[in-house]
Amino acid sequence: MKVYLDNHSATKIDDLVLEEMLPYLKDNYGNAQSLHELGQKAKEAIDIARERVSKLINCSPQEIIFTSCGSEANNLAIKGSIMLNNNTNSKHIIVSSIEHLSVLYSAKRMKQLFGIEYSLLPVDSYGVVKLDELKNLLREDTILVSVQLANPEIGTIQPIKYIAEIIREFNNQRKNKQIKTLLHTDAVAACGIIDVDVQQLGVDMLSLAGSQFYGPKGAAALFLKKGTKIVPQIDGGIQEDGRRAGTENVACIVGLGKAAEIAKNHLEENFQKMIKLRDKIIHDVPQKIQYVYLNGHPVNRLPNNINFSFEFIEGESILLLLNQKGIYVTSGSACTSKALKLSHVLEAIGVDAAVAQGSVTFTLSKYTTDEEVEYLLKELPPIIERLRSLSPLYSYFLKTGKRMQAGPGTDYEDDHSHINKEMI
Amino acid sequence: MKVYLDNHSATKIDDLVLEEMLPYLKDNYGNAQSLHELGQKAKEAIDIARERVSKLINCSPQEIIFTSCGSEANNLAIKGSIMLNNNTNSKHIIVSSIEHLSVLYSAKRMKQLFGIEYSLLPVDSYGVVKLDELKNLLREDTILVSVQLANPEIGTIQPIKYIAEIIREFNNQRKNKQIKTLLHTDAVAACGIIDVDVQQLGVDMLSLAGSQFYGPKGAAALFLKKGTKIVPQIDGGIQEDGRRAGTENVACIVGLGKAAEIAKNHLEENFQKMIKLRDKIIHDVPQKIQYVYLNGHPVNRLPNNINFSFEFIEGESILLLLNQKGIYVTSGSACTSKALKLSHVLEAIGVDAAVAQGSVTFTLSKYTTDEEVEYLLKELPPIIERLRSLSPLYSYFLKTGKRMQAGPGTDYEDDHSHINKEMI
Repeated sequence: MKVYLDNHSATKIDDLVLEEMLPYLKDNYGNAQSLHELGQKAKEAIDIARERVSKLINCSPQEIIFTSCGSEANNLAIKGSIMLNNNTNSKHIIVSSIEHLSVLYSAKRMKQLFGIEYSLLPVDSYGVVKLDELKNLLREDTILVSVQLANPEIGTIQPIKYIAEIIREFNNQRKNKQIKTLLHTDAVAACGIIDVDVQQLGVDMLSLAGSQFYGPKGAAALFLKKGTKIVPQIDGGIQEDGRRAGTENVACIVGLGKAAEIAKNHLEENFQKMIKLRDKIIHDVPQKIQYVYLNGHPVNRLPNNINFSFEFIEGESILLLLNQKGIYVTSGSACTSKALKLSHVLEAIGVDAAVAQGSVTFTLSKYTTDEEVEYLLKELPPIIERLRSLSPLYSYFLKTGKRMQAGPGTDYEDDHSHINKEMI
Repeated sequence: MKVYLDNHSATKIDDLVLEEMLPYLKDNYGNAQSLHELGQKAKEAIDIARERVSKLINCSPQEIIFTSCGSEANNLAIKGSIMLNNNTNSKHIIVSSIEHLSVLYSAKRMKQLFGIEYSLLPVDSYGVVKLDELKNLLREDTILVSVQLANPEIGTIQPIKYIAEIIREFNNQRKNKQIKTLLHTDAVAACGIIDVDVQQLGVDMLSLAGSQFYGPKGAAALFLKKGTKIVPQIDGGIQEDGRRAGTENVACIVGLGKAAEIAKNHLEENFQKMIKLRDKIIHDVPQKIQYVYLNGHPVNRLPNNINFSFEFIEGESILLLLNQKGIYVTSGSACTSKALKLSHVLEAIGVDAAVAQGSVTFTLSKYTTDEEVEYLLKELPPIIERLRSLSPLYSYFLKTGKRMQAGPGTDYEDDHSHINKEMI
């Protein structure tokens, strides 16, 4: 049995999505900028996709900029708005401490290149950003706040609506009306999975990616509110209204559009289906396995996300043994799984370094079945037991009843400082 | 009959390419960064593609950075090397005056953001860069020269090897050995069509795109010579060895790889086939139509490129009437066809503004047949005749034997200043 529970890293393309893409990989190969018939076919297909994506998040088609991936959309939002303001006195941005690396490293890059200051907005133990801290961090020269809508690793959904209200109020009361603080949300893990409405959220920019909701890799989008300006990060032709140059990836954009349409039409149905299975896993695993902790918010979390820390063992070992059973999971966020042993997200919510080592993310999809979940629940406990039987940390605990402390010079500490150096 | 002669804008995906892509749009949907089996399948596929692309241009796989399009590769080369040198005194780059807009606008953006100076390297009437001028333009603070390998609009192939020699000599003789002038070539229009060998060319960076040689849109690459450093333009995860973040577009990268393999194996055969048809068109059209001029180099030009100026009429009208006959061409480079009426390339080679208006690019492919060329040669002359019969410029010429001058206040002049404002 194959059980794919790594749906944040990538999802299976919906058959209907692929069907709609295929003509643009075969006979309709025109460049959407060409004025002849074959070019116009491509252009019309992109127009339809743009309309469908805009409907998914309740904006107008002109507010959609297609990009090649969620990371590109995040880079465009952060760098694009900072570069626009580079000649003003505006020099400060705020990003949450559990953002995707494409947000955190974009902020870091802008600091390096332009001397932009950025503040990390802290989160509580559930991963929810501290709204009072946001109020404290906002400054007269703050041009941007970027907080993800939902965290792909621990599933926590942020109160973006309240963040938008705080920023709106701040903008209303600020002295220098020339500057406006914009709000960007990385909705890559959320969009297509939960209801996302940019009007209700009150954001100026929002990133989404089709590969998260049964569309192809290679097509994502940035919502850019009408009237908001950014500096393109790919300069050149006039594609995307001059906001993102480069020959359009017609087939993948078509796929993203179809995936958006399907996601919108089946949002509630898929939500209910996944949340039932998610809650079964959240309920049953701690019944079968001791010393296991759920990370992220117990209620305000993605319907398809489960993140457990299994104490005394390593997430990567769990991943590899599950893999042998045909169960595919991840032990970190997709982009960092090979880079970092310790997750900056788990660190930010205060998970002990030793415990964080044993963390695994299970992400369900609309395709996940009851049988697959039963299979996971059957295969997981003996794997945990086997790994613990090999763990010196666990035998120390059994012998003494005490946890071994991760002191300086241990692997944990080393990894930890590596992350800090890289990221902050 | 449908005759697609717009192969610089986009090519038909080779059936063998699509066949190899399909599994990655169906069952092999893993993220290449995931450690489980499905992730590893994606990773292995990307490794094979990287190997194939590296073989096409004779470099090592580690020297290939996959991007989403040729424009992104050009942006990465120009901006990435400038951003790296931003803290030094190096502040000058040289780009040819007929570069793709993704190169020209990248240079312009770096000037705007960092105060980088850039010089436009002029070309002769065939579009060949002036090597003596290059020697004059090179300065102690020149960090980069970017000259395209072949121009997509007029087909002219540049003497990159000699440019590399000039730069090598300059680097050897420069006072400040801390600074090195790098050479980038935009080979998007050339790669997969003519033999491209980075060792023979002697370049530090080279851009290529699969959509130019029967691969899919959505996958391109930058060759970055070992030891050369650039600043990523998409920051985030560790993909592409930390040089380009974002979930890999596995299927399109696989397609690019297969296209590279096929291109390499059939380069000479396709070259000979296309050049025969190209030369037939170049020979026959002026026999059938008066006042038509070939733009670009008569010999050192892409085997698939023909660019004619048809005097007294407009390229866009020719395009639209050919389109009615099922013949697809372009009247500008793909990215500018809707943006600009006057081509900066034709301007740079000194084509009179009035004549440049009537220019059309015909780009052949390996699929172009003798019959298709015959059809073009049959359909084109009456279209030109019909358009000229409606042209006041032509009737003035017939009456007076003189060309109408494009003076201030005419459309030509307006368009012209528009381009200059935008680009320089």
